[in-house]
Amino acid sequence: MNNTRISTQPYKGSRDFYPEDLRLRDYIFGIWREVCKSYGYEEYDGPFLESFELYAAKSGEELVNEQLYSFTDRGERKIAIRPEMTPTLARMVAAKYKALNFPIRWFSIPNLWRYEKPQRGRLREFFQLNVDVMGIDEISADFEVMCLAIDIMKRAGAKEGMFELRINNRKLMDEFYNFLGLTIEQKIEFSKVLDKKAKISPEDFNKILEEKVLLSENQIKDVNNLLSQPNTLLEQMLSQKSNGAKEVKELLKKVKDANLENFIKFDPTIVRGLAYYTGIVFEQFDLNPQNTRAMFGGGRYNDLVKIFADASVPATGFGMGDVTFMDFLTAWKLLPQNQDELDYMITRWPETNPEKATIYENLASEIAIKLRAKGKKVLVWLDNFSKLDKQLKFAERKNASMAVIFGENEIKDKTVIIKNLRTSTQEILLLEDFLKN
Amino acid sequence: MNNTRISTQPYKGSRDFYPEDLRLRDYIFGIWREVCKSYGYEEYDGPFLESFELYAAKSGEELVNEQLYSFTDRGERKIAIRPEMTPTLARMVAAKYKALNFPIRWFSIPNLWRYEKPQRGRLREFFQLNVDVMGIDEISADFEVMCLAIDIMKRAGAKEGMFELRINNRKLMDEFYNFLGLTIEQKIEFSKVLDKKAKISPEDFNKILEEKVLLSENQIKDVNNLLSQPNTLLEQMLSQKSNGAKEVKELLKKVKDANLENFIKFDPTIVRGLAYYTGIVFEQFDLNPQNTRAMFGGGRYNDLVKIFADASVPATGFGMGDVTFMDFLTAWKLLPQNQDELDYMITRWPETNPEKATIYENLASEIAIKLRAKGKKVLVWLDNFSKLDKQLKFAERKNASMAVIFGENEIKDKTVIIKNLRTSTQEILLLEDFLKN
Repeated sequence: MNNTRISTQPYKGSRDFYPEDLRLRDYIFGIWREVCKSYGYEEYDGPFLESFELYAAKSGEELVNEQLYSFTDRGERKIAIRPEMTPTLARMVAAKYKALNFPIRWFSIPNLWRYEKPQRGRLREFFQLNVDVMGIDEISADFEVMCLAIDIMKRAGAKEGMFELRINNRKLMDEFYNFLGLTIEQKIEFSKVLDKKAKISPEDFNKILEEKVLLSENQIKDVNNLLSQPNTLLEQMLSQKSNGAKEVKELLKKVKDANLENFIKFDPTIVRGLAYYTGIVFEQFDLNPQNTRAMFGGGRYNDLVKIFADASVPATGFGMGDVTFMDFLTAWKLLPQNQDELDYMITRWPETNPEKATIYENLASEIAIKLRAKGKKVLVWLDNFSKLDKQLKFAERKNASMAVIFGENEIKDKTVIIKNLRTSTQEILLLEDFLKN
Repeated sequence: MNNTRISTQPYKGSRDFYPEDLRLRDYIFGIWREVCKSYGYEEYDGPFLESFELYAAKSGEELVNEQLYSFTDRGERKIAIRPEMTPTLARMVAAKYKALNFPIRWFSIPNLWRYEKPQRGRLREFFQLNVDVMGIDEISADFEVMCLAIDIMKRAGAKEGMFELRINNRKLMDEFYNFLGLTIEQKIEFSKVLDKKAKISPEDFNKILEEKVLLSENQIKDVNNLLSQPNTLLEQMLSQKSNGAKEVKELLKKVKDANLENFIKFDPTIVRGLAYYTGIVFEQFDLNPQNTRAMFGGGRYNDLVKIFADASVPATGFGMGDVTFMDFLTAWKLLPQNQDELDYMITRWPETNPEKATIYENLASEIAIKLRAKGKKVLVWLDNFSKLDKQLKFAERKNASMAVIFGENEIKDKTVIIKNLRTSTQEILLLEDFLKN
């Protein structure tokens, strides 16, 4: 081909949304919005570019050093493309926290960018539903966002056994590390290996516990026992008056009362990568045996607003990405066959005589205006030379319900032919009567 | 204050959309989507980042050299943040042009970035409705997108006299330049000064015609005469067998037939900045005497897909930005007072005894689940210590219609108090009956 031509491929890790793709995206966004609004959450949005320092503070090393798209603008400001929404949310809340009516329940569907190696479930550009409650330090708020997440899954057709939420608590883990007598350095290494646990072998896990966390053989045995028996760990930590354990227990009580025990489970191996979590954390897992993995997660982050303002704003929430969600729906065959519907296509009688052609054209647009005023979706054929057959085939491909046809005779009789493209039947109606309905 | 704190301001020229701002944005996007769909247009989207060369080719010098946000990614690719949508559209169409059913009618609402000095009607980040028809070289397609643009204005409440579309034709102007006997260099200078004409004085206009375009005194007089009498210019060019003039005349005939003469006018000073236009061009003007200016524009660009593929795809369309549109609606007082509605707020009886508090909590969430299942928007109060009065005040501020209240007595009687927050009246209903409705 011609080498001077520009590539038609989208930038690596990003997607083109053709109309058929956008309809699916819309379907997902529609479910997200509907469920959030049913819980009384209000939508917000922030800018696509933010100052670099917004992420440098709290987003965690991997995100900032390896994944962030950052650059210097023409005015020498260091800026970044948003890789997550929570820092923007915290900034916006800090800017107006005196005027806001807490608690606030907000959601957003930003597009985010991370410089990653594109792979299944992971692209450079993705959309992410962000759901947050700010101003409530009660476990009931953490529980509410989890219920909302489960309702989204159910609204999309997911059933028990297809997914589950696994919860843990950052405080509990810190208290557990203290109970084990770990130093700060050991805690950091322990958290890192825990975050990787699902992806590595038990042998490798133990090896890292020994060599990096510097645990003794007995400690490693104890740790493995407790991690595999979450309830024993919980009881043990409750006997140590652990605050984190108390919160987990309170949450599990709510889960039981709401009959959600098959959807929400305690799992002490859940830690979450982001640096700003302070309490309950959770991850949602796809239970498809071919595809067991974390789909999305969230948790409590009570100290984030403080980096912007002298205000204590307890907060909890989660982020749900469109790519993993779409993969989940595809794998479980839950995606709808949704084609865009078109109510009418108005054909144009082929006519080369300009004056006659104008008569057809004007009538077509007159009919279209009237149908659109009734809220119908109406497409008008725009040239005066295509055969009727070609026009009707096009209407079928565009999934139109009806075609409106008229030629010289129909104009004379003040009628139109209405062809039902689903049944291939047609009827002749007085134009006036047709437009009345 | 604390100097180490991070600024809460958004990046220069961008906006934070708090819930009340997002509702207005949603109102505008809603009108855009509704009108586009009523014409049978389908929504698409592309990536936020594109390769730099996509814009270097055809977007015009000012956009690329002064306004584009471009940078090099971690893989040494030169990329840019999209400053306009048309190159992405052309790329996407070129990538699939053999599989697409032409003509296609597509629209999109991308967020775009341009490095500009923020000012009224102009920000660095904005949203822009893009409406395009591809695959039809008929004037009827140009006319259709103009009708669609006018319908958007009308749907938003705009009336005759508030705005108008001014049309011209790139071919006509080129033929007019030939008629004047201009060289290529003179044509370029003429186009530039024409694009600025509305913003400079007649004296400055004439001075540039003399010094830069190098016209004689007589030519300048002729030019001014013709530009101020568009119909004379049109007749003159028709007598020269100008193709551009023929197209303008054909379009004006359709305008007349559709009774849109007060909305669409021929204006030979409209040229449009972008390099890729090839035929009809137009700009929409706000007629507010305090604010006469171009709000948005578009035109025909038949050769753009060719830079990607060996395909001839005639195309026409326009882009309408949210900032100027919002300014228009604000100036003409057309923005609605739209508050988000919330159907119910479920209060929580203050109770410190944990077991009793749980009973209230569980009943509240049971009621919420049932109301949400009916499609209601329901907010639940989440703590067990706030006074009822505080909860009701909050419900009013959130614009809830009803509050649901129950204490020990109501639970015993299996009733609930439903308080209408608009009228401040209340009634006691059996819980069962309340949930039935």
